[in-house]
Formats: sequence, structure tokens, C-alpha cells
Amino acid sequence: MTKNTNIRISLPAVCFVWQIAMIILFGVFIRYNEESDTHWIELKRRKNISTHLENDFYYRYPSFQDVHVMIFVGFGFLMTFLKRYSFGGVGFNFLIAAFGIQWALLMQGWFHHLDSDDWKIKIGIENLINADFCVAGCLIAYGACLGKVSPVQLMVLTLFGVTLFAVEEYIILELLHVKDAGGSMVIHTFGAYYGLTISWILYRPLLSQTKHLQGSVYHSDVFAMIGTLFLWMFWPSFNSAIADHGDGQHRAVINTYLALASSVLTTFAISSLSQKHGKLDMVHIQNATLAGGVAMGTASEFMITPYGSLIVGFCSGIVSTLGYLFLTPFMEKTLKIQDTCGIHNLHAMPGVIGGIVGAITAASASESVYGKEGLINTFDFKDATANRTASTQGGYQAAGLCVALAFGLAGGALVGGILKLPIWGDPADGNCFDDEVYWEVPEDEDDDIPASRHPDMNHVRNMADV
Amino acid sequence: MTKNTNIRISLPAVCFVWQIAMIILFGVFIRYNEESDTHWIELKRRKNISTHLENDFYYRYPSFQDVHVMIFVGFGFLMTFLKRYSFGGVGFNFLIAAFGIQWALLMQGWFHHLDSDDWKIKIGIENLINADFCVAGCLIAYGACLGKVSPVQLMVLTLFGVTLFAVEEYIILELLHVKDAGGSMVIHTFGAYYGLTISWILYRPLLSQTKHLQGSVYHSDVFAMIGTLFLWMFWPSFNSAIADHGDGQHRAVINTYLALASSVLTTFAISSLSQKHGKLDMVHIQNATLAGGVAMGTASEFMITPYGSLIVGFCSGIVSTLGYLFLTPFMEKTLKIQDTCGIHNLHAMPGVIGGIVGAITAASASESVYGKEGLINTFDFKDATANRTASTQGGYQAAGLCVALAFGLAGGALVGGILKLPIWGDPADGNCFDDEVYWEVPEDEDDDIPASRHPDMNHVRNMADV
Amino acid sequence: MTKNTNIRISLPAVCFVWQIAMIILFGVFIRYNEESDTHWIELKRRKNISTHLENDFYYRYPSFQDVHVMIFVGFGFLMTFLKRYSFGGVGFNFLIAAFGIQWALLMQGWFHHLDSDDWKIKIGIENLINADFCVAGCLIAYGACLGKVSPVQLMVLTLFGVTLFAVEEYIILELLHVKDAGGSMVIHTFGAYYGLTISWILYRPLLSQTKHLQGSVYHSDVFAMIGTLFLWMFWPSFNSAIADHGDGQHRAVINTYLALASSVLTTFAISSLSQKHGKLDMVHIQNATLAGGVAMGTASEFMITPYGSLIVGFCSGIVSTLGYLFLTPFMEKTLKIQDTCGIHNLHAMPGVIGGIVGAITAASASESVYGKEGLINTFDFKDATANRTASTQGGYQAAGLCVALAFGLAGGALVGGILKLPIWGDPADGNCFDDEVYWEVPEDEDDDIPASRHPDMNHVRNMADV
Repeated sequence: MTKNTNIRISLPAVCFVWQIAMIILFGVFIRYNEESDTHWIELKRRKNISTHLENDFYYRYPSFQDVHVMIFVGFGFLMTFLKRYSFGGVGFNFLIAAFGIQWALLMQGWFHHLDSDDWKIKIGIENLINADFCVAGCLIAYGACLGKVSPVQLMVLTLFGVTLFAVEEYIILELLHVKDAGGSMVIHTFGAYYGLTISWILYRPLLSQTKHLQGSVYHSDVFAMIGTLFLWMFWPSFNSAIADHGDGQHRAVINTYLALASSVLTTFAISSLSQKHGKLDMVHIQNATLAGGVAMGTASEFMITPYGSLIVGFCSGIVSTLGYLFLTPFMEKTLKIQDTCGIHNLHAMPGVIGGIVGAITAASASESVYGKEGLINTFDFKDATANRTASTQGGYQAAGLCVALAFGLAGGALVGGILKLPIWGDPADGNCFDDEVYWEVPEDEDDDIPASRHPDMNHVRNMADV
Repeated sequence: MTKNTNIRISLPAVCFVWQIAMIILFGVFIRYNEESDTHWIELKRRKNISTHLENDFYYRYPSFQDVHVMIFVGFGFLMTFLKRYSFGGVGFNFLIAAFGIQWALLMQGWFHHLDSDDWKIKIGIENLINADFCVAGCLIAYGACLGKVSPVQLMVLTLFGVTLFAVEEYIILELLHVKDAGGSMVIHTFGAYYGLTISWILYRPLLSQTKHLQGSVYHSDVFAMIGTLFLWMFWPSFNSAIADHGDGQHRAVINTYLALASSVLTTFAISSLSQKHGKLDMVHIQNATLAGGVAMGTASEFMITPYGSLIVGFCSGIVSTLGYLFLTPFMEKTLKIQDTCGIHNLHAMPGVIGGIVGAITAASASESVYGKEGLINTFDFKDATANRTASTQGGYQAAGLCVALAFGLAGGALVGGILKLPIWGDPADGNCFDDEVYWEVPEDEDDDIPASRHPDMNHVRNMADV
Repeated sequence: MTKNTNIRISLPAVCFVWQIAMIILFGVFIRYNEESDTHWIELKRRKNISTHLENDFYYRYPSFQDVHVMIFVGFGFLMTFLKRYSFGGVGFNFLIAAFGIQWALLMQGWFHHLDSDDWKIKIGIENLINADFCVAGCLIAYGACLGKVSPVQLMVLTLFGVTLFAVEEYIILELLHVKDAGGSMVIHTFGAYYGLTISWILYRPLLSQTKHLQGSVYHSDVFAMIGTLFLWMFWPSFNSAIADHGDGQHRAVINTYLALASSVLTTFAISSLSQKHGKLDMVHIQNATLAGGVAMGTASEFMITPYGSLIVGFCSGIVSTLGYLFLTPFMEKTLKIQDTCGIHNLHAMPGVIGGIVGAITAASASESVYGKEGLINTFDFKDATANRTASTQGGYQAAGLCVALAFGLAGGALVGGILKLPIWGDPADGNCFDDEVYWEVPEDEDDDIPASRHPDMNHVRNMADV
């Protein structure tokens, strides 16, 4: 059975319609904020700001660029591991991230940054970081669907994903006053359950037909390591990018650096332990080593202590690798959830761990550890939350985790239903994981090898020749 | 017909002579500036500078490193897409950039930074950024010649390219007082027409003999995406690196970020629209997605508004992709311009668009939008240009574009003529796009496959065995 | 002869034991420093610090991230050049760096940062940079052993390497008051001789059995260029990361940038000169181009002048390339030192050059060049060293180089002896350079090619099938 995967009308139509919509909406709503507007120079003098360096740009730009690399190179190359879906991995990641950040600026702007004077959204560097964060949720969801959906479906997934993200983020951060600097809940838990639910609804019973394309080859595994390492190295920037100026950013970096280092060791340990000859599995190394960063997202700003960070990384590396070994096959066989990249192991479980760790750490915060001012400053106990105690905050943190979960599951169910409509040009089960479907793939050098030599590759390699 | 491609004397000779010349000229002319000299600590106290952070280093170093990555990894890996010219793509890019930045420090120093007291050039971080920028022009030109020239020719191309660049930059920025923070005109327009003219003069009528080497293979396309993404992600740093401290850098980042996002969507749209089954073409994705960054170069500092940036990206993505579809084949067939990387589509047209957008945006600048101080500050209306109005500035901007074009065309004609001399060790038409000519290429694993299996590859693979 | 390379017990055991030890030791010893603690906000007010930017985080974080990229992507990908050891190159680099940075925080903390009030180590961003530096020494040593040791051996090598590093660093920097911002002596000289001595002790007489795996393939050379370029581009950050705020960091960047550019040109020159047809050798381009950065490590902060930096790069590029051409084969044949990556050429010789250059530059420093305050500030002539003259300092610098050398040789002998014990699961001579030994390697697409077609590859490719 083949399906019509021709996207010559639908993809350009969606791209153009949405890009034009973006232009119109940006025209109506989006303006520079006071730090990126030419009036800054007057403001600076009026407010007696001593130096241009106080422009938030200088606090956040280096972190922004690191996050940017994580979104485009990190997520993109992590998804190149499949032997014949590297174009789709890095290419569609590029497409939906570029679309998503625009829509995120609007959605997050409406909820968080709408100026009540003139109903405009005033953007600056922090908005760009938040837009990148928002898109990360959708890219995580893409990980579960990798190779099985059309680019048009991905655009729809992103449009709704960003929308849902902005709402849950508003509820969690603004209404519940929950702290989640690195997004264990808001980004990872939400994004992962959103993607898993979609993948569950789009279940493909005959996916084993493409078994020969579901693995990696030697070089594609090395490509994927580019993604892994850039994610791993820059995760301290991810978790600190929008943390409080000063000690907040500083501490978030230290905690994340340590948690990540620790999860590398436990990942290698469990991976080796799981094979007859103690051989390591690249899937684990590429993914579970990152679990420490995910799990440190919420608590990165808190006084979790350096050894606390090591423990978080220790546990999440183990949980994540065990997930790849036992949960992913179980989920596929029993729960009918096909999770191409194993986002349940890399984002869902570590994200939930991160939310719980955050709740516990917040609940046990005390003036003796944080200092009176430090406690207020770290948890923003002022205005509406001036009377909160640390333990109340812990309760709210836990509530935030539930909101993220609920949005992921409900949102995924809704969007999964929409994506099941037979109008999106997705591939048949036997054509999944194959760049030939949506890309002009160059003939490889060894294509002059007679086709009969590669029995199960023929349809792939020679399609371009026809 | 074969040519003598032995560069065993010429390449080392050029490298040594020029490197020694650099040492001598640096010895005579180049010194640390006051912010990189040990006297800074006295200067700081004398001038009552409150903190080391006011050293320009801290304003510009993060952007510098991003630009540095664009020059060496961005341009370098973007040129690895050919199946058998990846060494030449990334390797010669490395060579000429490393040479060019030294020569650029001298040339730009003589024109812009010569201290009239002691006739020395005082360098600091901004000079390093400008040297990287200057070299970018030559690397763009290399894109048109990729695979068809010898490294010695590339050194000559760079020597003259940097020289010409410094002069046109001096005329445009210092004499005409034109603004061009991201170099749409100074870097992209100049570099592209310089390279295209050279390529036109070096026309190779029998290039179709190497048709089998002119495409990519699966892995080389993934390598090229490394280049694309690092260029794309760091382009906001490119356009903001030497912008004004404070709101100038901040705004340049926002504008570039948006233009780039927008051009990704239109590139995917046009690419899909152009193929029978709506399949995407990696050539477009690797290149045209960057057009928004090029086109936003000049106006990035201006109050072009966020939606204005989206429109610029929208149009330049379309124009660039259409260029790959229609103009490149037309230019090759009719105009006899062989443009390996399609720099006409990625740099020339978007660069010209950028210059025009800059002129229009400048001409329509007003005090009501910029604020009185903001207008003066943004366009540097002081001293010689204190009486300029915005519309006059627009005219000067347009004049700057013409200067860049003229220097590109005339310079390319001159240097093309020089490079046509039969002394540079360039390959014959049938040996182009082949790393075997200038590199020790390792035997591939499948070389034990009898040579007869790869009819058209034999001369490549087995040369090393002889 | 085959050896038992089963590491199913040993590797997980080592990982778990050491990670748990880290958690306990961190719990006992490591705390946030005052700039990463929530009390910062009170401290800031109390000390009248005007802005959060004075938090050292903002001075050093961008450089830290660049160094981090060098450690994980730079060193990691530089070691992917072997045709069938890319997993081991980048993967084991990842493992030992993640372990090493934890141990380094403790070791360096005990020696340099132990708070005498409460016997705690207070960490901040500078400690993270130093930990990365410390690990660099071990990664250099790994370069000599690449492909010939088990991951358990590498963990041991790292445990001892970090320990030795912390001691020699303490002697050189704290006791001798030697300056070595970029670590020519402390990192490169020590690391290289440590690795070379280990490799000498672990000499493998029958290594020629794996000759077919000791080279690169086309794609693996391109992967290695990722490592080369990220090392090259970020080396200015490496040499400036812990330099003095202000002019110190600024000057270190300029000097390193220039030395690196210069060594690229001489590397290309010598590489081309060495081959009959002037063809370039990727091994040289990947490695010797970096020699300028190594050799500029010690003197990067000094007033070595821009042309001085060019000369340092000039010489070290030549020396390093000649090393690859003549010394490496000589060392392997005559001295029985098998140096997989040629670290003697990239780190040992340029490191020694760097130490000598540093000593000479320091000895010839004068108040007329540095300024009175500048001289004191640059060489830290205060407290114990208040009476030092520049020429005395030069002597101490030379002494520092000897200490680094001695620690490398003696430490390598000790650790080499330990690693020779037959309990570490290292491969037999005929199984070196082969990822099959420690990794689950995916079958390549062309594995359906009958095994008989790849005579010497069969044992590699089909091991997984058995």
C-alpha cells in the first residue's frame, strides 16, 4: 500500500499562509522593547544607567546563542542518527523551529508581555530566548514522530504545540508562580507527553516493514554525536539563560554542569552492564547522557548544593538508560507507542524527576541556607506571593508539574486526532524513515553497484533514477 | 589534456614569502591598542573608568567568537557538499582565511586605524572582527570558484580581494559615511561580484567532463548542513558584532533573527513547489535559508521594525531559491559564468536587496520614530555629516551600493586576468572538483572492490595506489 | 592471540564506585562560592558592588563555554579520524572528560581553593574552567593511546592524570609563582609527556597487524576537521579564559589569534613541500595548524607584541609538521613509542616551545614597555614575589617548564606501570583501533556485500552478526 505523499501544494501553501500571517500579526502587535529601541540612549541618561552593559543584551546574549545552537544544531543533529533520514532529521527540525519561534514570540507575547498601554508586545533578547525554549517543546515532540510524519503535519504539530505551550507556561509561571528556569516541567514534561500522545494516536501497525531503515549506520551515529555534544555542553546555558542575574545564573550553570557530568558516568555504566560483552550502545550514549540536564531544569537556580546536583544526574542517567533498555520496547509492544528517538527516556522521565526534585528542593528551602533576602529573591516571594512559605511553594511546584503533564496528554490527544486526518501527505508504513519520500536524495557513489546487490535498498537508492 | 598541478614549489613559496612579509609588516606597523596594552590599568584609573567591563573586549568578544565560527566552520563546511571536494572545501577555506585575516589587519589598519602620532596601527578586538569580515568577502568569492582553482590562485585571489575590500570599505564607510553594520554591500555584494567576475574570466568550456563529481552524496550533504546551521544561527552576531553598543547591537540581533526565520519558510516553500512531487532540494535548504541574514546586513541597526525584518527575509528567501532554480543554469549556459556554490543567489542578489532596503529604511528615518538623539546616534550625524538629513543619507547609502558593485566587477576583472596566467597550477577541466589533485586522499574501505566496478571513479580512487 | 576485552563488570564497577565517591566527597567538601550563593545579593549591597555584571560569571562565562566546546567537541572530534575508531574517539573522550572534571574540582580545590575557615572548597565559574583545563591534560595523553587501551584503563589514566596535574599545577603556579595562563607547560607539556611515557610502557610489538585500521577514510577526515576547527577557533578563549580581567584577556586573545593564523600557513607550506607532487596531507592540516595556540599558551598574557606572536606561530607550525614527517616514524621504530595522534608534535614540542618563549618574554619584560603598574599587574609581583625582577621571573618560568616535564615523565612511568597489569580488559595487538571491541557497531549498508569481498574487514564487520 502506498499513500500520496505529494506535498507540492500543501507544504508551500502552509508555509506561505503562515509566514504572511506572521508578517501581518507582527505588524499589528510586535515592537522593539525599550532596550532595543533607539530611544534607549535617552532612557539610559534619564534613568541614570551608568553603562550600556546594563542593557539586558549583555547579560543574556551569550546564553541565547548557546540555546540557539542547542535548538538548531543540538536537536537537529541528534535526529540524524537514522541511516536514511538525516535530511529529514536536521532539515525538518530547521523548518519547524524557524516557524515556531515566530509564532512563539506572538503567543508568549500575548500572555506575558502585552503592554496594557498600547496593546503591543515589546520584544528584546529575553523574548528570543523564550521563543527558542518554546520551540524546544515541539522539537522534543518531533523526536517521538521522527520518520513517520510529513512536514505539513510537523507544521501543524508546531502551531498547536507552541499555542498549548504558551498557555501552560502562563498558568504555571504566572498564575501558580512556579519556578522553572530550565523548563523540566514546562518544556520537557509537556513536550514529551505531547509527542508521545500524538505518536500513540498515529500508531502504525505495519512499521516493521521498514525495520531495515530504523537503525543507524556508522557515520550517522557520529553525526548524531555532534547533536549530543552541543546539547550536553550548552545545557548549562539552557538552564541559566533566563535565571536571575548574578548568583542565579552562576549557580544554575554549576548545578547543571555537575548533573550532566554525573549522568554521563551512570549512562556508560548501565549501557555496558546491559550487554553480554559489556559493549556500549551508541543510542544510550547519545541520549541518556543528557538526562542530567533535563532533570536539573527546575532546581538549577535553587541551593540544591553541588553534591545534590551530582545525585540528580546519577539517578537520571540510570533511569534514562534503563528506559531505553526496557521501557521503549515495552511501550512499543504493549502500549502501542512508537517513540523513534526515545523521548520518554530522555525528556519525559527526567522531566518528571526534575519537577519532583524542584518541588522537594523548594519545599525544604530555608532562610538559614538562602539568607532572608536570598530566599525572597530566589523564589520571588513578593506581591501576590509575599506570604508564601517554602513548603507552600513546594506544593505549587508539584501542582505545576501536574499542569504540564495534563497539557501534554490532553493537547497531544487533540492534535493527534487532527493529524490522523488523511489529508496531510504522511508516508505509508512501508515508506517511513526514508528521505526519498520528501527529499531529492543524491545518488550515492556506490549506486553503480548493480541494484540487485542491495535487495532491500533498491527502492530507496534507485527511485531517483526513475 | 592534463595540466601540471604540481604545487610543491609554488604553494610553499607563496606561504613562506607572505608569512614572512606579514611578520615584517606587523613588526613595523602593528601594536596593541590602549585596551589591550598593559597600560590599560593606568588608563582605567586616570579616566575614572569604573570597571574592567568597560574594556571593549567584554562588549564584543562573544560576537567575535560567533563570527569566527561562521568564517571557519560556517563557510568551510558549507563548501563540503561536493562528493569528492570536501577536503578542498574546508581545507582551502582554512588556509585563505588564516592568511587573509593577517593581511586584512594591515590593510584595514592603514586605512582606518593608523595613529597619526607614530604611524602605528593599534589593534583590539574590533580589528579582529573586521579582519574576519574582510576575509568573508574572499570566501564568498571562493564559493564561485570552488573546485576549479589551485590553492595558489586562491592565495592571490585573497591577497587582492582583501586589498580591494579595504579600499571600497574605506570609501563607503569613511568617505561616504554610509552605514553597513552587517556588510550587505561591503561584504556580500562586493565579494559575490568579485568572485563571479573571476569565475566568468576563468570560464571552463569542458567542465561537463567532471559532471559525475559536481553533485553531492548523502553524507556530504549532511556535512554541509553543519556549515549552514552555524552560519544561520550566528548571523545575528555577524550583523551586530560591530553595531553600536546598547540598543544598536540589541536591535541588530532581533532584526536578523527574524529575517532569517522568515527566509527559511519561503525557501522550503519555493523548493517544494519547484519539484514534480514537491520534494525538497538540499541545495536550496543549505543556501537560500541564509538569504535573510545577508539581506538584513545593512538595515539591521535601523528601526526597520520586526515585521519589516520578516518581509525582508520573506522576499530574499524567494529570490534566492528562484535564483538556484532558474538563474544559475541560465548564467552557466548563456553568460558562461560557472558558479559552483551559487553565490549569486546567496550573496549577490540578497546583498543588493540588503543595500536597497538599507537605503530606503535610512531615507525614511524620522525623529518621530528614532527620537532626536536616537537618529543622530544611529546614523552618526555628527562632525562632517552633522547636517545630513535622513533622505540625503538614503542617497549616500545607494551610492555605497554602487561603489561595492563597481569594485566587485572591476576588481574581479583585474584579478581574473591575473589568475588566467598559466603559472598557478590549476587543474584541467577534467580534473576539477577532485581532491586527488591537491590532497593525499585516503583509500576508502571499499577500494578493495575491484576497480572495474566503479568505472568513472577509477581515476580518482586508484591514483594514490600508483 | 586474543585477550579478554569483556568490560561488563569492570567498567560499570569503576563508573559507579567513582561516581559515588564523587558524591560523597562533594558532599563533604564542595560548596558554592560567594558569587554563586544566594547570599550574593546581600554581599553585593554590603560591598557596594554597583552591578550584577561584576559577578565573575559575566567576565568568564563566554570563554568557559568556548573552552567547554574545545574539550568535548574539539578533542573528541579530532580523535574521530581513524576509519573504525570514531565511536571510541569521541565517546571515550566524553566519558573521561565527564569523570575528570569532577575529580579535578576536588583536587584543584584542595590545593588552591580550600577555605581555611571551614575546610570547604568554594566553587564558581573559574573552577569550572580550571577543571576543564585539567582534563585537557588527560585528553592529550589519551591521544597517544588512542585505539590501544580499554575505557577502564582510560579512567585510571584520568584519575592519576588529574591528581598529578593538580600537584604540578600547585607547584608551578602557587609555589614558584610562574605565569601560565594558557597552560603551555602545565597542560600541554605535562599532558603530552604523561601520555607518551604511558604509550612507551604499553608498547605493542605486533601493532602492524592492524595496519589496515590505522588510517582514515574520506569521511572520517572530514569529521576530524570539526574537531580541528573548533579547537583552532576557540583557542583564543582557551588562552584568555583565566587571564587577568581587562587588558590581560584582551591581549591573550590577540596574541593567540595571530599565532594560530601564522601556524596555518607554515603547516600548509611544509606539508606541501614534503610530498612528491606537493599534495597536502590531512594529518598535518588537522593537527599542526593548532601548534601556534599551544606555543602561545604561556606568553599569551605578556607584551610579546603582535609580530612576536606571528613568529611563534611560524616556528611552531614548522616544527610540528616536521615532527609528523620525521619524528613520529622515528619514535615508533627506534624509541618504541607509538603515538596514535602524534601528540608529541602537536602538544609536546609546541608546549616546550611555549614554555621557553614564556621564559624569554618574561625575562625581557621591562617597565618601559609594560608601565610600572602594568609590570606588577601582569606578573603579579606582590606579597611573596614583590621583589622579583623580570629576569628572575624568567628563571622561575624555566623552572616551571622543568617541573611540568618531570611530572609528565615520572607520572607517566608510574601510571604506565599500573596500566600494564593484565586486569584492565585492553585489546590484543590485532584488535586495536577497532570499535567492535567496546561498542555495538551498526551493520553498514554495504554489509549485504558478501563477506568475501572485504578480506581484511571480515572480522570487523561480521563480528556483530555472530
